[in-house]
Amino acid sequence: MDGKRATANRADGPLAIVCGGGSLPLTVADAVAQRGRRVVLFPLRGFTDAAGIERYPHHWIRLGQAGRLRKFALAEGCRDLVFIGGVVRPRLAQLRPDWLTLRLLPRLMRLFRGGDDQLLTGVAEIFEEYGFRLLGPQEVAPEILTGAGPLGRHHPSARDHSDIACGLAVLAAIGPFDIGQAVVVADKRVLAIEAAEGTDSMLDRIATLRRDGRIGVPNKMGVLVKAPKPGQDRRLDLPSIGPKTVEGVARAGLAGLAVMAGETIMADPQAVATMADRLGLFVIGLPSDASVP
Amino acid sequence: MDGKRATANRADGPLAIVCGGGSLPLTVADAVAQRGRRVVLFPLRGFTDAAGIERYPHHWIRLGQAGRLRKFALAEGCRDLVFIGGVVRPRLAQLRPDWLTLRLLPRLMRLFRGGDDQLLTGVAEIFEEYGFRLLGPQEVAPEILTGAGPLGRHHPSARDHSDIACGLAVLAAIGPFDIGQAVVVADKRVLAIEAAEGTDSMLDRIATLRRDGRIGVPNKMGVLVKAPKPGQDRRLDLPSIGPKTVEGVARAGLAGLAVMAGETIMADPQAVATMADRLGLFVIGLPSDASVP
Repeated sequence: MDGKRATANRADGPLAIVCGGGSLPLTVADAVAQRGRRVVLFPLRGFTDAAGIERYPHHWIRLGQAGRLRKFALAEGCRDLVFIGGVVRPRLAQLRPDWLTLRLLPRLMRLFRGGDDQLLTGVAEIFEEYGFRLLGPQEVAPEILTGAGPLGRHHPSARDHSDIACGLAVLAAIGPFDIGQAVVVADKRVLAIEAAEGTDSMLDRIATLRRDGRIGVPNKMGVLVKAPKPGQDRRLDLPSIGPKTVEGVARAGLAGLAVMAGETIMADPQAVATMADRLGLFVIGLPSDASVP
Repeated sequence: MDGKRATANRADGPLAIVCGGGSLPLTVADAVAQRGRRVVLFPLRGFTDAAGIERYPHHWIRLGQAGRLRKFALAEGCRDLVFIGGVVRPRLAQLRPDWLTLRLLPRLMRLFRGGDDQLLTGVAEIFEEYGFRLLGPQEVAPEILTGAGPLGRHHPSARDHSDIACGLAVLAAIGPFDIGQAVVVADKRVLAIEAAEGTDSMLDRIATLRRDGRIGVPNKMGVLVKAPKPGQDRRLDLPSIGPKTVEGVARAGLAGLAVMAGETIMADPQAVATMADRLGLFVIGLPSDASVP
């Protein structure tokens, strides 16, 4: 393990990356490694794509194996921990609790019943009690954040901008309630608000309503607006978008999507831009002063 | 047509009832007739159940036949008009516009693209311009409104009451945006907010999320809360519940449902109470001061 020795003297030591689904975990790993910091991956059996994982030291874990994660992270000399990848709530049947998780179970069950904020903040607290420092992926790899301005060829129209403003106002209104991070607005009509179902499922709903003729909105009208919740722990649950989000927006018949620049993780920006151009959609990062409606 | 003559001298004249789906149209017709006022039904082809319609003078119309409705309502001597029944947005393919509707079409299309409030208020205005007076079904048949207190055997628990308070707070927050009239809250977590999809579809979503293990909430926990929007035209779109709503609440695995007393139409209260008792759910009408969270 030469790599270990080479970075062991660095102030922060090696970084443990707990990997969910999608391409983001390797993007973050590559960015951190390029800065010369050693990374150790902890891919999640059943969630993480195996391709590319072998490029880094890694230990497969199952969802719920907090003890195994702790043991191997300590053995690798990692004190810093990053969680990155798919944020869909797991099915309870996918949990494989080990002894540490079982000890924490009553606490985890209480957290699981709360909102996303509670769940994630609670998990972060637990890891910190066990001596780890939890970092946001954007802290170790700021290049994954969406920049300000349009990505790709298409720009929002004046009507799109007024739908975006309406969407931000709705998100601000529900902010105190720890609900979703996304809404769909078309011609100032709010078509959907995300709660427990997640963004992809919300976009599918719009596609179905449209197919059934229950939304009297022409094709290519309407905007998906995503923004972080006010109370959100930004180390764990920044809104994220990627090529799949753009496909969902297209299926829902919308004109484009708007996110907060600097507060939204973007998986594979090149693919997002290419796909948005091909589907004729806009993707825009809003400057942070846009969040005040 | 003896009935016609018998009620023709009454101050308000006969009442035209435009009937949507469900059992409410006949409930309203019966209540009005019992008060001694003549009723003329306008059942909607494809929406209204034919059974029982023949008990009253009636003229079948198709969705979009504003001219036909106007002609027959005038011929029957009706100046007062009530719309009652299924409020699901129709598919555009179901519209059969006649000449009057075609003339109004540009205006209707603009309304159709707006929120429900805009659509309904706009339709009301149009009928008033043509000399009709639009009444709320609760104005001619107040017995269809939900009373205060629990219906049936089961009562909300302390936790249910705190979920209800949370739901009312969310509805108050989104009130200014002309969104849905319903939310689902379980153990203070907001699981769903209704927008364009309607209450039944929102409850189906909860059932699916629960079946997929994506909601870590025990069975029989959580509440459906419905309340009128602040800006809502109460003649046309009061929230309504019925036996089908109770079934949806049961499928979603919730503990019960709460509505605003005096501001919610209830179809078939007897069947609602029986079904709630059988399924072990509570149904409660909240006193109107409960709407201030």
